[in-house]
Amino acid sequence: MASSPGGSTLTPAEVRMELHAQNRGKLVRCLRQRLAESSRPVHGFVLLQGGEEQNRYCTDHAELFRQESYFAYLFGVREPGFYGAIDISSGKSILFAPRLPEEYAVWMGKIKPLAYYKICRNITWLTWFFYTDEIVEVLHNHCENPGKPLLFLLYGLNTDSGNHSKPAMIKEMEKFDTDLDVLHPVLTECRVLKSEMEIGLMQYANDISSEAHVEVMRKARVGLKEYQLESVFLHHVYMYGGCRHCSYTCVCATGENSAVLHYGHAAAPNDKTLIDGDMSLFDMGAEYHFYALNISSFAGQWNISADQLLAVLKAHDNVISCMSLVIGWIDMHKLAERTILESLKEGGLIQGDVDDMMVGRLGAVFMPHGLGHLLGIDTHDPGGYPKGLERPKEPGLKSLRTTRTLQEGLVITVEPGCYFIDALLVPAMEDPDKSKHFNRREISRFRALAASGLKAMWYDALVTAEGCRNLTNCPRKTWEIEAVMAGAPWPPPPPATLSQNGGYR
Amino acid sequence: MASSPGGSTLTPAEVRMELHAQNRGKLVRCLRQRLAESSRPVHGFVLLQGGEEQNRYCTDHAELFRQESYFAYLFGVREPGFYGAIDISSGKSILFAPRLPEEYAVWMGKIKPLAYYKICRNITWLTWFFYTDEIVEVLHNHCENPGKPLLFLLYGLNTDSGNHSKPAMIKEMEKFDTDLDVLHPVLTECRVLKSEMEIGLMQYANDISSEAHVEVMRKARVGLKEYQLESVFLHHVYMYGGCRHCSYTCVCATGENSAVLHYGHAAAPNDKTLIDGDMSLFDMGAEYHFYALNISSFAGQWNISADQLLAVLKAHDNVISCMSLVIGWIDMHKLAERTILESLKEGGLIQGDVDDMMVGRLGAVFMPHGLGHLLGIDTHDPGGYPKGLERPKEPGLKSLRTTRTLQEGLVITVEPGCYFIDALLVPAMEDPDKSKHFNRREISRFRALAASGLKAMWYDALVTAEGCRNLTNCPRKTWEIEAVMAGAPWPPPPPATLSQNGGYR
Repeated sequence: MASSPGGSTLTPAEVRMELHAQNRGKLVRCLRQRLAESSRPVHGFVLLQGGEEQNRYCTDHAELFRQESYFAYLFGVREPGFYGAIDISSGKSILFAPRLPEEYAVWMGKIKPLAYYKICRNITWLTWFFYTDEIVEVLHNHCENPGKPLLFLLYGLNTDSGNHSKPAMIKEMEKFDTDLDVLHPVLTECRVLKSEMEIGLMQYANDISSEAHVEVMRKARVGLKEYQLESVFLHHVYMYGGCRHCSYTCVCATGENSAVLHYGHAAAPNDKTLIDGDMSLFDMGAEYHFYALNISSFAGQWNISADQLLAVLKAHDNVISCMSLVIGWIDMHKLAERTILESLKEGGLIQGDVDDMMVGRLGAVFMPHGLGHLLGIDTHDPGGYPKGLERPKEPGLKSLRTTRTLQEGLVITVEPGCYFIDALLVPAMEDPDKSKHFNRREISRFRALAASGLKAMWYDALVTAEGCRNLTNCPRKTWEIEAVMAGAPWPPPPPATLSQNGGYR
Repeated sequence: MASSPGGSTLTPAEVRMELHAQNRGKLVRCLRQRLAESSRPVHGFVLLQGGEEQNRYCTDHAELFRQESYFAYLFGVREPGFYGAIDISSGKSILFAPRLPEEYAVWMGKIKPLAYYKICRNITWLTWFFYTDEIVEVLHNHCENPGKPLLFLLYGLNTDSGNHSKPAMIKEMEKFDTDLDVLHPVLTECRVLKSEMEIGLMQYANDISSEAHVEVMRKARVGLKEYQLESVFLHHVYMYGGCRHCSYTCVCATGENSAVLHYGHAAAPNDKTLIDGDMSLFDMGAEYHFYALNISSFAGQWNISADQLLAVLKAHDNVISCMSLVIGWIDMHKLAERTILESLKEGGLIQGDVDDMMVGRLGAVFMPHGLGHLLGIDTHDPGGYPKGLERPKEPGLKSLRTTRTLQEGLVITVEPGCYFIDALLVPAMEDPDKSKHFNRREISRFRALAASGLKAMWYDALVTAEGCRNLTNCPRKTWEIEAVMAGAPWPPPPPATLSQNGGYR
């Protein structure tokens, strides 16, 4: 690794294009099965259009391009302007590169011949390479069935955004038959369960991001701006991890800002100064070769928040220990809620029967978001609500991005939270059914403290045959965090060396 | 400054919203004059729509928001979803904030009352604050003329991108008269000449970016990836300068990549490893409170490129020393071309009469881009070709982003270049008119060397009454660069201290 000595113990993971060939193979198998099940002929082409570079408003300022996620999943192409096709009957793939104008060579770099993509990127894993202006001709030539070739185009709902994916557009579409229904659900379902190679990349993204979180914990101190800690994170994952993109805008929240779930955006741009007594919440994750991850960590002074953190940790541990195949995610969400309510009751903040609270959805006041979401090429990976799975309507539960039953290979975040957000607490304390549960005096102690913000543990878990495997390796417990902030090594050295250097407790 | 000790000598510049009030005042004066000149009544409202947050493709991944540049210029608002209006007759301004849903408070942060914008951001400088759903009513109420209020909307060509700005869209537009012609040229012209306050921000962006360039020069060494140096730059300007955005995608080019003018984009993502003998070109600039800057610097081993660099430096010095009011930018471009051709002739790379070469546009083979571009809230600031100024058609000259006459307050980059790009050299050497000028043996020495890439000096100059003022403070000369890379302080200490510590040569 070409990094500064001591900067990182990691080297960027190898990226193998075979991963995307596996993804395409899986899609072909699933599509064939789907077509056979509905007694439809098993032929036609999957046709996907990659993303295009975007300019900022009316200017020629080109935004840094990031590939569209479905296209990235199937073809692994990082450049804009491509199309990709897969012949369902033969399983062979065709990549269509943009034919670049001569001027490109002057401004943007040597125009790569098609051979470049064969040699450097995909040789073993793609069958044919053509230019995008040859799509119609090539697909007609490769079609072995009479009549117009059938194109399966990507059109369907993203259940997180409410937006629809945009089907590929080509000239002379009238020369093809098209199907807009079959591809999206099948391809989305393929993305839900991760392959070993995908998990390898996600593990690497987790490793480098975990290391960057530790770096941020060590650098956090009174007087710094929140964005300076964001900068420490971004620098670590790019400098040592080769991660140019992040999975989402960094949340670097201190003091009361840690109660804002999506802090860090342009209207709240991580610009507070850390003051004495602030607890910090860092919700930041790097992306590596398209694959995202999602970690939150904490640093700072605990004060009263330690109780809150313990409640969340307990919920976290309970969920992790119960996660296993065939369990529904909604049950895990409720388990986390119940654990948090029990802890809050133990701490004297709320009172009454926890079963009553569960029925009255009191948990949603303290944890308004879902317990976790699917994770993959998107931070909110699609497929949370396949056809037939309805989104719940109750408070808290309606925020769940999935209620799927856990399956092997599914990667999901585990992020129980315990918040004191006025916009939720005040109406709840005025609600005739809920008000009886609140110990107002204790609650207001929390509300009055700047440090009483969000205390969620974000954590990426891979569902396995035996239960679940933690992909994240960040200090979680208060004593771990304090040790790391004081300079102790992370991960902790094995017990044998511990007694020798005594630097860890 | 809350930075690591020794990390930077700078502190983020104060941002005063008065700057934008001045910009609005200037617009009102110019609009009044324009309307009066065409004998039109001097009333109506300027209405601009700010930018909206964008999701990535069909997902809910929100891209980090950056305000639309015209809106930023007039209102300085960093958040999405705003509108702004200016009453031309009274000169008073109205800011319209989006009315955020209650849920916003849970996810995105406290909903700021209109008073927030009054107190924290614009109090002295804006007259009224309303919500965007009140635009129609408010503008009707504030209109003192009979009939429908007249709206001046922003619609016009960006001569760099070829795209048009999008006029503000509101419901019930039929309740207004609209004018799409007047605003764009007048507002664009306002942006061309910078105020003292604007120059102050650009100077700061230049200072922190210059310092970051020096940091990159010091860190550059064999074995690093290009993107690691990009990361050093990004970290420095964000950590110590508070610059979250860059003016453009960083170009961190080493070896032959330095011949690619816009290297660094997704298809060429700064991923080469520095090898022994590589010369590096760093073209990177930070943005501070919307204001951009543009700097290139060099590092590495010079070898044969030193001659090339000297040619460019000479062109640079010639241009700088000749820049003054009333000079046309096209003459400055030709001066740079001529200087480079003379240097190449001196070096034996080309032969014949330089006047002939100028007539034959030989300079465009070695410097295919324009000498420089306007700089401001956009890296390619608009206004290069106002109505009546035609873009030249000749090679090289047609790439000029402006042919304006220099005026006081104009900020323009000065970036002569000398390149050996096969895509241009090979056809030129086969051209019957041009071929006689080439000394093929010498030229091929350059082409064969990985280090023979682009050698442009980018540099931001403010045109003043006396000539021009350099806003950039980066090592330029080979000995300066070598000294800085060897650890000498930058900027160099004053002569008195030089003799004492001897650390500088």
